Amino acid sequence: MSGAVQGRVHGVGLGPGDPELMSVRADRLVRGAKHVAFFRKAGRNGRSRAIVEGMLREDAVEFPMEYPVTTEIPLSDPRYNAVLSEFYEECTRHLCALTAEGEDVVVLCEGDPFFYGSFMHLHSRLQGTCEVQVVPAITGMSAAWTASGAPITWGDDVLSTVMGTLDEAALTEAMTRADALVVMKIGRNLPKVRRALEASGKLARAVLVEYASMEGQTVQPLADFVGEALPYFSIVVVHGEGRRP
Amino acid sequence: MSGAVQGRVHGVGLGPGDPELMSVRADRLVRGAKHVAFFRKAGRNGRSRAIVEGMLREDAVEFPMEYPVTTEIPLSDPRYNAVLSEFYEECTRHLCALTAEGEDVVVLCEGDPFFYGSFMHLHSRLQGTCEVQVVPAITGMSAAWTASGAPITWGDDVLSTVMGTLDEAALTEAMTRADALVVMKIGRNLPKVRRALEASGKLARAVLVEYASMEGQTVQPLADFVGEALPYFSIVVVHGEGRRP
Repeated sequence: MSGAVQGRVHGVGLGPGDPELMSVRADRLVRGAKHVAFFRKAGRNGRSRAIVEGMLREDAVEFPMEYPVTTEIPLSDPRYNAVLSEFYEECTRHLCALTAEGEDVVVLCEGDPFFYGSFMHLHSRLQGTCEVQVVPAITGMSAAWTASGAPITWGDDVLSTVMGTLDEAALTEAMTRADALVVMKIGRNLPKVRRALEASGKLARAVLVEYASMEGQTVQPLADFVGEALPYFSIVVVHGEGRRP
Repeated sequence: MSGAVQGRVHGVGLGPGDPELMSVRADRLVRGAKHVAFFRKAGRNGRSRAIVEGMLREDAVEFPMEYPVTTEIPLSDPRYNAVLSEFYEECTRHLCALTAEGEDVVVLCEGDPFFYGSFMHLHSRLQGTCEVQVVPAITGMSAAWTASGAPITWGDDVLSTVMGTLDEAALTEAMTRADALVVMKIGRNLPKVRRALEASGKLARAVLVEYASMEGQTVQPLADFVGEALPYFSIVVVHGEGRRP
């Protein structure tokens, strides 16, 4: 393979889930890809892979990257980071080996690759080793506020995006300071998120969007939701109330 | 026209500027549109119109909506809001008249329609009068952090999006609280934005992206930029430093 032109890794954002919300560039890269890599949980098909179902070349070579960690090691355990880090290193080695052979690889990314995405962990390891191009995408939060039927921000509104995994004091603080708000990674943190929203005076305006842009999309006031946990594809938005003519 | 099916207004997000970063749905709607409306400053071609150059049907009917206000009325003058409001009402009447005749209209929107977009002012007035569908899009800030070559957020990072039009104390406060930061609407507010970034300890990490995803895109440390104002297509990003394996 000496003398071969080096290939490139494309971190391709697929957007929030509806294949029609992929960018024209993402659509083109996915349909043309010979090598397609994607993360998935062991035993699952993979959420990013599901978005491109029916779009891949017949001869496309798929490289599923299966997370080694589920819930058996707590996030606070140092082994958690060590195991994940080795996993990302291994994936990186595989992608780099392909590019060294002159092959381009499309890595499928849910949402926008540089916005809380798993691809970031490959990107930082690929840096300086092989060429990487990132295609931005429509975020899940854009799909959520669009589904809510109202603009998220007006005038000078400060928009804050917070993760439900934050501790309650930090959540409450960030929610209080924000004019408009997006809460992601809620899942089993829902009771805490709800308390923080209440403490910050924003619970009454909080809108829960599940499966934004996907089949089964629902929109409802968070206050109406009974339950202690939310599915992965859930985003809470609080609309800003800034100035408008 | 009695008995005609009512048409629909599509608020179509075009994304950050590169036509290939439009969604597949936006691309389809724009290419198929018989009626195309867009905002522009008097005497200009319009930034959203420029993105779709070469994509419109030959028989497309264009409806440029020219802002009546430039810089002669200060933002604080009540006439500013009154003039703008009447302008949006007038645009709304035209769009509704078309839908009443059974015509669909595509309104071209820079960026994401529900994220600090001008379309929001039409949307609130169209509500209850005619059917509106909004197509979300890649935001200018996604294009900016992608251009910067590094992820904007990691782990539990709080991302705050702030407008340079805020007063200095509010800017400094919001910047101090954020882990990751996006600053938009900078323009002539640059000296104030710079002081607030300095006061919040984030100036050294601030990256200036001009014309993200467009011809003439530049990326540089904000500290290296000499000048008192920035062009419209400028976004400052400060990357989060949250946990990562």
